[in-house]
Amino acid sequence: MKAFGEILTLEEALDRYLSVVRPRPRGEEVAPLERALDRVCSADVRAGEDLPPFHRSTVDGYAVRSQDLLHASPRDPVGLQLVGAVRMGERTEVRVEPGQCARVPTGGMVPAGADAVVMQEHTRVDGESVYVLRPVPPGENVLHQGEDARRGEVVIPRGTRLRPQELGLLAGLGVVDVPCYLPPRVAVFSTGDELVPPDHQPRPGQIRDMNAYTLTAQVARLGAVPRFGGILPDQAGAVEAALRDAMRTADVVLASGGSSVGTLDVLGEVVPRLGDPGVVVHGVAIKPGKPTILAFCDGRVVVGLPGHPVSAMVVFDLLVRPVLEAMLGLRPELRGPRTVPANLVAPLVAPQDRDEFVRVRVRWQEDVLAAEPVLGKSGMITTMTRADGYVRVPMGTRVEAGTQVQVRLFD
Amino acid sequence: MKAFGEILTLEEALDRYLSVVRPRPRGEEVAPLERALDRVCSADVRAGEDLPPFHRSTVDGYAVRSQDLLHASPRDPVGLQLVGAVRMGERTEVRVEPGQCARVPTGGMVPAGADAVVMQEHTRVDGESVYVLRPVPPGENVLHQGEDARRGEVVIPRGTRLRPQELGLLAGLGVVDVPCYLPPRVAVFSTGDELVPPDHQPRPGQIRDMNAYTLTAQVARLGAVPRFGGILPDQAGAVEAALRDAMRTADVVLASGGSSVGTLDVLGEVVPRLGDPGVVVHGVAIKPGKPTILAFCDGRVVVGLPGHPVSAMVVFDLLVRPVLEAMLGLRPELRGPRTVPANLVAPLVAPQDRDEFVRVRVRWQEDVLAAEPVLGKSGMITTMTRADGYVRVPMGTRVEAGTQVQVRLFD
Repeated sequence: MKAFGEILTLEEALDRYLSVVRPRPRGEEVAPLERALDRVCSADVRAGEDLPPFHRSTVDGYAVRSQDLLHASPRDPVGLQLVGAVRMGERTEVRVEPGQCARVPTGGMVPAGADAVVMQEHTRVDGESVYVLRPVPPGENVLHQGEDARRGEVVIPRGTRLRPQELGLLAGLGVVDVPCYLPPRVAVFSTGDELVPPDHQPRPGQIRDMNAYTLTAQVARLGAVPRFGGILPDQAGAVEAALRDAMRTADVVLASGGSSVGTLDVLGEVVPRLGDPGVVVHGVAIKPGKPTILAFCDGRVVVGLPGHPVSAMVVFDLLVRPVLEAMLGLRPELRGPRTVPANLVAPLVAPQDRDEFVRVRVRWQEDVLAAEPVLGKSGMITTMTRADGYVRVPMGTRVEAGTQVQVRLFD
Repeated sequence: MKAFGEILTLEEALDRYLSVVRPRPRGEEVAPLERALDRVCSADVRAGEDLPPFHRSTVDGYAVRSQDLLHASPRDPVGLQLVGAVRMGERTEVRVEPGQCARVPTGGMVPAGADAVVMQEHTRVDGESVYVLRPVPPGENVLHQGEDARRGEVVIPRGTRLRPQELGLLAGLGVVDVPCYLPPRVAVFSTGDELVPPDHQPRPGQIRDMNAYTLTAQVARLGAVPRFGGILPDQAGAVEAALRDAMRTADVVLASGGSSVGTLDVLGEVVPRLGDPGVVVHGVAIKPGKPTILAFCDGRVVVGLPGHPVSAMVVFDLLVRPVLEAMLGLRPELRGPRTVPANLVAPLVAPQDRDEFVRVRVRWQEDVLAAEPVLGKSGMITTMTRADGYVRVPMGTRVEAGTQVQVRLFD
């Protein structure tokens, strides 16, 4: 293990930070099904009953006994006696005996005695007789009771983010009160004497704050709850007061600004005072994003992010997102960005001492995805708006054009 | 062109439908930047000024004239006279003449006369002299005025969905009122005598409605505005009254239920009465989802979806989503699901007369993505909850294991 204060790799930094913070959800609540989209469920959801609750036909046709039709063919159809029709939404009293059949609609209950449904396209009807033109295996065109979900079975494991299909399954099982984790509350600050809000006209030397918008949007996209706390001056007293105040109601405090030595000093001076154990990681061997402070102060996650909007976004994705996803309660296999394989179309070189994260545009070229590096200095926010994701280039390595790389896609 | 009433392929159906509907946004509004995440901007956004508005240093170091340092080296450093320090957020009056330099923080204004910044790590300071250990090319460590965005340049084209980075760029340019398309309003109905709401206990033959939840969630995920109109009985009068009422306030009306012949009759009977030109497509050669009605009635998009939750979700994605994305105003290249290349791990066979859409799970195996078909009958909603996306198998073809396929990822 590296000594404290040494520059850590991304994985070392993250491992050390997660082992100190041990992030987990702050609690649970019950969400109504109507508002559960994209929430993370906090308990294994078991089917309280079989789904479907009865044998259902998956086609329009005739419920039959497959044994009757072993030798059916177009040249030698088997005639069955039509003994009734199943009505949608009702229990059927019909019973299919040998040599009989019953009309059944898609979604209708398969009557007792029948073990399969013949599609109507494969029959000819003549009065009370239905001629079947082909054999059917047992179970054909039937969704059996409990085949979709069996009573008692875990159908949605704890830590699942609820997509439209999970909501549908919950509805089908009658789960209208959904146990969900409470999302972490994240306070976001921008620091820097050069910053003005976007609705201000900057004076010479000033610049409009972007991080308030990028970071709160990144937080919101994950499903956590952002609150922008404002722009703070490069002044230890003001920064400390604002961060301490935020720590009273937020689980996570993010303060960007700190690419400059002056600003870094402020966060580097203030953060250790905010509580124990304090600063866990200071500096990570990544480009962009080296001057990052990861701290844990009296139970609050406190992160000092670089001031460059691009660096702040990348550091958020690499180092803050894993913490938030654990606090959101997401299962480990559902964490992190989507990654896809792509062919690099131009060579990339990383510096000797840092892994570089290079923005790329991803496009289909014939049958393969191509990853084209976005040109422009790393401080340019337009390198992010022109990109679909980014590629990691390990420190001191050159990745040749034509190499297959993994692209971390933006959400 | 196929005759009206014939079963169309997916592309034929979609082309025909889009050419009749010609979907486009219903209007525009101005959204405050704070609430513009995931909205679609309705105008080309041009930079009103240069970004950055002045030459900015990207590092902590010394602003220099690169010409002075052509022969600098660790063995033979070039000494420069330190003539001042740039302060963050202020215009600097310092001017760097030949043989001089000025201290500048990351993000600070590069003073007049200087054309590059040397990182402080590459210098040694001795009183008023700064010794530089290496040459720097002109422009090194400087983000030039207008390099990120030049005044007048289109930085965000119309039809862009605003991600965190676009919000940051808008903030940087002072665009706090964002022109956005109004999202389409989508009414969703479930039809079928067998359906009960999820908080009801189904009687024998009944089943809980899932489509209300899956479809409204799919609509919401795209950024359109869903409203669930309720469960309708298989009764033409009731269905017609409800759909007509919804058409007064919705741009799109979706009615699921119609896998059964009885129900299809109701929608097939009602929809043509709702306005002109009426039904455009009835039946599409896809599995699942064949019994689909695409209609355009007095300026309203009206779609009859299959009742099976899985079929309804797939048809929504294949046939309704393209219409909604056009109505949302999304640029064509931003429409549709994310698709990724993956290696199929088991063979798939489609029927002779329909393209089949098979749910798959996607996992990294070594350096490639593997697509594993999800087992289970197509009517099972759990085939959707266990899947990450789906693969298209063209009608009458067999796709062998090991083939590279395109997976349409779920959002």
